[in-house]
Amino acid sequence: MASTQIIPLVHVKSPTALWSLPFALLSFVLVGRGEGNAMDNVVTERLAEESHRQDSANLLIFIMLLTLTILTIWLFKHRRFRFLHETGLAMIYGLLVGVILRFGVHVPPSMSDVVQGCAVNASPATLLVNVSGRFYEYTLKGEVSRSKGHQVQDDEMLRKVTFDPEVFFNILLPPIIFHAGYSLKRRHFFRNIGSILAYAFLGTVISCFIIGLIMYGFVSFMKVVGQLGGDFYFTDCLFFGAIVSATDPVTVLAIFNDLKVDVDLYALLFGESVLNDAVAIVLSSSIVAYQPTGDNSHSFEATAMLKSFGIFLGVFSGSFALGVATGVVTALVTKFTKLRDFPLLETALFFLMSWSTFLLAEACGFTGVVAVLFCGMTQAHYTYNNLSRDSQDRTKQLFELLNFLAENFIFSYMGLTLFSFQSHVFNPLFIIGAFVAVFLGRAANIYPLSFLLNLGRKNKIGSNFQHVMMFAGLRGAMTFALSIRDTATYARQMMFSTTLLIVFFTVWLCGGGTMPMLSFMSIPVGVDSDQDHSSSGMLDDSQRRNTKHESAWPFRIWYNFDRNYLKPLLTHSGPPLTATLPACCGPLARCLTSPQAYENEGPLHDDDSDFILNDGSVSSMYADVTVSTDGSSSSGIKRHRPSAADEGLDHDLALAEHEVAIRGTRLVLPMNDPADPPTTVTLPPPPSPPRSDPRRHRL
Amino acid sequence: MASTQIIPLVHVKSPTALWSLPFALLSFVLVGRGEGNAMDNVVTERLAEESHRQDSANLLIFIMLLTLTILTIWLFKHRRFRFLHETGLAMIYGLLVGVILRFGVHVPPSMSDVVQGCAVNASPATLLVNVSGRFYEYTLKGEVSRSKGHQVQDDEMLRKVTFDPEVFFNILLPPIIFHAGYSLKRRHFFRNIGSILAYAFLGTVISCFIIGLIMYGFVSFMKVVGQLGGDFYFTDCLFFGAIVSATDPVTVLAIFNDLKVDVDLYALLFGESVLNDAVAIVLSSSIVAYQPTGDNSHSFEATAMLKSFGIFLGVFSGSFALGVATGVVTALVTKFTKLRDFPLLETALFFLMSWSTFLLAEACGFTGVVAVLFCGMTQAHYTYNNLSRDSQDRTKQLFELLNFLAENFIFSYMGLTLFSFQSHVFNPLFIIGAFVAVFLGRAANIYPLSFLLNLGRKNKIGSNFQHVMMFAGLRGAMTFALSIRDTATYARQMMFSTTLLIVFFTVWLCGGGTMPMLSFMSIPVGVDSDQDHSSSGMLDDSQRRNTKHESAWPFRIWYNFDRNYLKPLLTHSGPPLTATLPACCGPLARCLTSPQAYENEGPLHDDDSDFILNDGSVSSMYADVTVSTDGSSSSGIKRHRPSAADEGLDHDLALAEHEVAIRGTRLVLPMNDPADPPTTVTLPPPPSPPRSDPRRHRL
Repeated sequence: MASTQIIPLVHVKSPTALWSLPFALLSFVLVGRGEGNAMDNVVTERLAEESHRQDSANLLIFIMLLTLTILTIWLFKHRRFRFLHETGLAMIYGLLVGVILRFGVHVPPSMSDVVQGCAVNASPATLLVNVSGRFYEYTLKGEVSRSKGHQVQDDEMLRKVTFDPEVFFNILLPPIIFHAGYSLKRRHFFRNIGSILAYAFLGTVISCFIIGLIMYGFVSFMKVVGQLGGDFYFTDCLFFGAIVSATDPVTVLAIFNDLKVDVDLYALLFGESVLNDAVAIVLSSSIVAYQPTGDNSHSFEATAMLKSFGIFLGVFSGSFALGVATGVVTALVTKFTKLRDFPLLETALFFLMSWSTFLLAEACGFTGVVAVLFCGMTQAHYTYNNLSRDSQDRTKQLFELLNFLAENFIFSYMGLTLFSFQSHVFNPLFIIGAFVAVFLGRAANIYPLSFLLNLGRKNKIGSNFQHVMMFAGLRGAMTFALSIRDTATYARQMMFSTTLLIVFFTVWLCGGGTMPMLSFMSIPVGVDSDQDHSSSGMLDDSQRRNTKHESAWPFRIWYNFDRNYLKPLLTHSGPPLTATLPACCGPLARCLTSPQAYENEGPLHDDDSDFILNDGSVSSMYADVTVSTDGSSSSGIKRHRPSAADEGLDHDLALAEHEVAIRGTRLVLPMNDPADPPTTVTLPPPPSPPRSDPRRHRL
Repeated sequence: MASTQIIPLVHVKSPTALWSLPFALLSFVLVGRGEGNAMDNVVTERLAEESHRQDSANLLIFIMLLTLTILTIWLFKHRRFRFLHETGLAMIYGLLVGVILRFGVHVPPSMSDVVQGCAVNASPATLLVNVSGRFYEYTLKGEVSRSKGHQVQDDEMLRKVTFDPEVFFNILLPPIIFHAGYSLKRRHFFRNIGSILAYAFLGTVISCFIIGLIMYGFVSFMKVVGQLGGDFYFTDCLFFGAIVSATDPVTVLAIFNDLKVDVDLYALLFGESVLNDAVAIVLSSSIVAYQPTGDNSHSFEATAMLKSFGIFLGVFSGSFALGVATGVVTALVTKFTKLRDFPLLETALFFLMSWSTFLLAEACGFTGVVAVLFCGMTQAHYTYNNLSRDSQDRTKQLFELLNFLAENFIFSYMGLTLFSFQSHVFNPLFIIGAFVAVFLGRAANIYPLSFLLNLGRKNKIGSNFQHVMMFAGLRGAMTFALSIRDTATYARQMMFSTTLLIVFFTVWLCGGGTMPMLSFMSIPVGVDSDQDHSSSGMLDDSQRRNTKHESAWPFRIWYNFDRNYLKPLLTHSGPPLTATLPACCGPLARCLTSPQAYENEGPLHDDDSDFILNDGSVSSMYADVTVSTDGSSSSGIKRHRPSAADEGLDHDLALAEHEVAIRGTRLVLPMNDPADPPTTVTLPPPPSPPRSDPRRHRL
């Protein structure tokens, strides 16, 4: 038996009217207590049933919202309206429902308040409450802000449609982020990796601190003016900076995808937005972890600062390592088992392993969402090649669907929450300050970094590209999820309300303005993403060679390592490890190399060497890219020799990338390029066409 | 402001040690109270974080279990072991983990018990607890049995891996049941609909009452002997009868599927198991609802009995109507919008509409699982035909995956729970009684009903078939979910423990014994499910005609109504409504008929009329069947004229049925039948082969 402590009564208030059951039901509980067990049982069951029905009805509201969104989006796509993206639409529907719930539905005030004498001085995760000899189990949901105590009772209905914020982090964000990693167009991503990393890491940190500083200025001013209704520390400002630094240009990218906007611009924007989500989430948790010791808990302290920095590095690298590790394990499992004979098992394994990344990271205290991102990238780079064709389709489609549903759910919830959230703090000064800060923070990210990158880059990022990147700094799902996670204090409530407005404003204005922006900035559209040598105006041939030199050595090392060791180890692709590993590792290499690697080696190696001869050793880092480019542009030829169809794994991948939708829906583009019909003509004609023709007519 | 009542203190015990945090953390709470807000904040956050990490770790255990199951299953399939199905394997892994958690992991007794004076006499859904001025929100999780109060503390770890039973009903069962409905082989199902309904409705009720009566006998005997440790009423016995009457022959059907066992036997077993799940769940809730008024709440009372019967009918028909209604709405939406151009939107809509069925039914107080079953059947019968080919694949694969994951999760949880559940009541007498009762109940279902059905049926259900059906009375996911739903009382706990044993026993023994059973009973295997005119030994030609007469008129009416009005209304299939509806409805009919219906009418009608001429008007109810049979058996031919591939919608469906796995994994059978290679030989040879050959070598 564990030891027990009796603690003196401190303060008494429990249970309040946080439940809006009909009065009749409750009075039954209060009056009918003498009736014994059976009656109590019935009442408890009815309570649970009622609560379950209410939950179902609430979830139904969202399902209906999503259904409506889907139908309207179809209508828009059908009529080729492009000014409103599905996420923007989901927000509008959410707003409408929020308005209806707020102003249309009136719930009579609950008559069932029970204030009781009760002594509790700790807040355990589980509470057993003894009601006349029967035990009821309660679980801790979280802390409720002091001021809310009574406001809450007013609009029970609104409270009911409120989800636990952790739902976003544990259920809705992971598929979105995984899908982003899984559908990354790796070819263009790796070509711009340096710039993307600069924007994502350096840029996000710059943006965070700029916004934090500006907001601190505004908040100080508000304090002087007397507009501030509660505490707002510098760490809060930094936290705000971190959460609104996560860009989510889903709307813009969907339009880019439809219009086939320049692939490098696309890669820069998409890569940055994917990675800066990860940076922002880890950054914000590091800022929260900034806890100086001693009395004045909001002063600057070097050790706490260093600790925060250490947390940032530790959590980020830990999540990265975990994500990559599960990806690698999945690749190994799919390589060394013949699971590909059973697509259902394969898909299930893929799904479970990807999910376990998230859980593993969370269980280890890392950030699941970040781990899932890198897991997705690893799965796409290695595991995808091992999957059967059927599973490739299944996994792509599954995560596409999950991403679509989760994204639209979040955005419609966002719309709803503008009216249904109970503790909004709309402070005009703070809102103005935030908009200014967000704008300046984005500018301080894009323009100086682009300038610095252009010093090193030979294929400059043009000023029109910079303006588009500036313009595409939409805030979306991640910003919302981070801001709703904790709305206990005054500062957090004000942040949340302001963040909502920022998301609305950027999604609608920037989303709707993408088309005019593109034409105003004269960004080339209609670029085929597979002809990457072409036309973007940003690259000519001499510049290309320089580009390679620019980011050469670290990536050449990585590329060679990946091509010679990792890919042969983790996939069926050649060259076999027996050829690349030193002789002493012979038995191990033979054991790890799959039979297909020997087969694959021949044809692939020939193609590779071609390019190596052309461009010198530096270009070997682009060989992967070039092979796949070649693969997809030659798809018309491939069709005439189907026996060669399973030669190139990278070819499959390149084709697949065609179909993987990039965050949001897109038209499924027909794969037959216009050059196809002519190609069929080049087949050798049948030896005696004049004679065979009449016979065919007779048949 | 709502009125408040102050209620006198009744009994004092709250919060107990239902949380196993390190002692250090708690002592911090108790000691550090003076440190103010910031510290409390940190502690609360840490508490929530710790609980979240624990949850993630627990879920991870299950994900790992499922991953292991998948890998082992692959090994079994790879090596063609058939004696153990994946669900049986999942149970074994679950058992192992349960044993490890139970006996291997020792959690030090929690030092953090806090017993406090607290007056609560109601159990609201939400509780606000005031801890030194800070409010914490708790939500009601359910009632804890009195006796558990202290046992619970012993093995905290075991309690942690316990899921809320409602998870099964609200998350895991719906996809399983929907998949069953969506993948029902409708052709063979409808042919045996009379027998299936008899087994499912009458049989389940018979089984429920037989088991209930036998158990009541055993329980009375136990009471006399003094083996009964608590109350056990007749309604409890009936409830037990209802929950163990839900058969789930997933193991048997998977083997049937692999071996291509007789299609009629398959249809009987599968149809019965699908429908009796629905019957059992509604039946059990009707029995729970049996509440005689007055003092002796467990006596017989006619009005309460009638009320229960009314509830059964009301809930069942309500759920049925809701399920069909959402299916019809989905069919109409997919028919009248051109959503099929965007497979992602279409799939998302399909998924959301099917899910909303569940929520709608639950919100209305009907049974979501039953609604979902009929929704699945409606979607398969109508909506499926409207979907694009891509969406057909996507929806099938999605629900196949969800079904696979949910099923294996439930079975591995079952294994785990045998050791992790805290309040097992294993009573040898009760267990023996239950096994006897389950056996006799199944026998009283199958043999008398088969005898009665054979009186009417001309294609008799042979005694070997009856023995196989008797043998295939496995208990599975639904029985488990129903029994774990409420384990508060002694009676329910004993039921739960016994049910677990029944599930284990039937899944392992009957699952593993299927192959010997089939050969012992000389059931024909290797029957191609598409050649339904063939070979089952149960049907010859004269019998077939009689079969049709047997169940003729209600189904002829239904079939004609479906073919002439419902299918044209809800899908693109012909004949157009303009042809079938009376002239007065002309404008409406024109409006509701899709352009394709006019096109489809020609070819399909020709095929239909063929069969109508052969078999007379009665056979029109089988025309649908015959068309699709023709479609799939001629698939080899179709390949040579690809332009005709999109003619027959039913053809698509028939092909699709090939691939839809029936509850559980199966080998994806290659579609090319052995007759295919010869067919390619029949192509006209190139006019001058001897001359073209050397040329090819030169190229």
